[in-house]
Amino acid sequence: MATSYPVGIVGLGLIGGSLALDLTALGHTVLGVSRRLNSCTLACARGAVTLASQDERILRAAQVVFVAVPIGEVLPTVARLAQILPEGTVITDVASVKGSIVTQATELWPWFIGGHPMAGTADQGMAHALRGLFRDRPYVLTPIAQTCPVALAQVMALVDGLGARRLNAAPPDHDQAVALISHLPVLISAALVLSAGQSAVLPLAQALASSGFADTSRVGGGNPQLGRQMAQFNRAALLLALQIYQGQLEQFHQIIADQQWPQLEQRLHQSQSLRPDFVN
Amino acid sequence: MATSYPVGIVGLGLIGGSLALDLTALGHTVLGVSRRLNSCTLACARGAVTLASQDERILRAAQVVFVAVPIGEVLPTVARLAQILPEGTVITDVASVKGSIVTQATELWPWFIGGHPMAGTADQGMAHALRGLFRDRPYVLTPIAQTCPVALAQVMALVDGLGARRLNAAPPDHDQAVALISHLPVLISAALVLSAGQSAVLPLAQALASSGFADTSRVGGGNPQLGRQMAQFNRAALLLALQIYQGQLEQFHQIIADQQWPQLEQRLHQSQSLRPDFVN
Repeated sequence: MATSYPVGIVGLGLIGGSLALDLTALGHTVLGVSRRLNSCTLACARGAVTLASQDERILRAAQVVFVAVPIGEVLPTVARLAQILPEGTVITDVASVKGSIVTQATELWPWFIGGHPMAGTADQGMAHALRGLFRDRPYVLTPIAQTCPVALAQVMALVDGLGARRLNAAPPDHDQAVALISHLPVLISAALVLSAGQSAVLPLAQALASSGFADTSRVGGGNPQLGRQMAQFNRAALLLALQIYQGQLEQFHQIIADQQWPQLEQRLHQSQSLRPDFVN
Repeated sequence: MATSYPVGIVGLGLIGGSLALDLTALGHTVLGVSRRLNSCTLACARGAVTLASQDERILRAAQVVFVAVPIGEVLPTVARLAQILPEGTVITDVASVKGSIVTQATELWPWFIGGHPMAGTADQGMAHALRGLFRDRPYVLTPIAQTCPVALAQVMALVDGLGARRLNAAPPDHDQAVALISHLPVLISAALVLSAGQSAVLPLAQALASSGFADTSRVGGGNPQLGRQMAQFNRAALLLALQIYQGQLEQFHQIIADQQWPQLEQRLHQSQSLRPDFVN
């Protein structure tokens, strides 16, 4: 059982709000900060926080602070908190990209721990925050050589308390893996929708699209800002993943153009047998 | 209410078996034929058919015969039935490709109607046949200039009896639409799995893959024979769809390489707003 102590959360959206609900339920004093008064009020009303404020200075009482803001705001937020928090306070983020954040954030604040809870829903905001969102979901922590071991141990204990499947990985490995299995699918899926939208038989295509299309295109219908941020902050890894993918697709093109049917079937067999290891 | 009369079904797999269950429930005498004795026995045991046999000659008593066999076996089956059935018996197929079948099948048998019920499950075979599989699902009929209107009307009435969303389309339009919204997703999805399988951080990628990956890769884990047949029999339309798709993906690549973030976000917005018309 984790010892309970004051935990701060900056950003009371879906992720920050869900963290707040779980940490409150675990017995922690939770101090929530949002720029939006609305989110503060809602977080209090839902019993997600002990105290919510638009003023980051309330976080001085916290032992660990989760920074649950959009990727591009993580470093500016850490820089602001570094002016406010007492030395030794642990800061951890939840951004889906780590390489472009962890080294700089650790320079700004020696007690920084990179984190990425791989959970979410199609909805956004405190209103949709959920208890147990992180349970049995992967939660990656990305310590580097300069990382403070005591700070890491504290975040690890909190993540374990959430019931998440905790993994440690080097930031570049994390970024490469998520580029391939999380960011690339957004582009693949959006390109399918955009292709279908160009169809010369559009109304028929719309009428005939079924579960196969719906599933393959789902993540292409997601939040455009989030998609842009992933690409922007994980650009190198995503370009590499995209290049590998385009190569695979070109091989399919060639095989079908050349009518090499046994080879096509063999590749589809390979896909069929590889997939279960990714979706257990 | 459709008048009930004897209906034949060649092929007692998932589609043929499900047709049998529904047509029997609608009060038709259903005559089932399968090369596999096992499927005949199971069809009888499940009450899907009035009579099942490995001998196609029992179909002489039918007024309409559904040919529910793999794409490549449709034309040989129609050719055999043409030697057996009395003139005027309607034959309809269920293959997912129509251009390469309908003209030739109509030459073999003037009372042929091309059909494509867009329904299915991940399972195969009579054992997994389901009542109501076609309800509210698209069911395309593809009449051509030479099609017998009386035969068409009979198949239309049967399809309506199944509760399907019936559509008529020209075979090339059908093939172009399904290439884009059904066959292309199989390749897109399989290429994603094959790319992920090449990852330099494979165990991490496997551990982090979540619902986005699972959905985008689902149809790439499907039946390899079926995927090969789709490509083989709908080759021209699929190559065109693939080319359009590769162009879309290359645009994403260029935009990300050039760091044109507003343009990326605009395209993701376009995808987000186009998608609902395909997945209503």
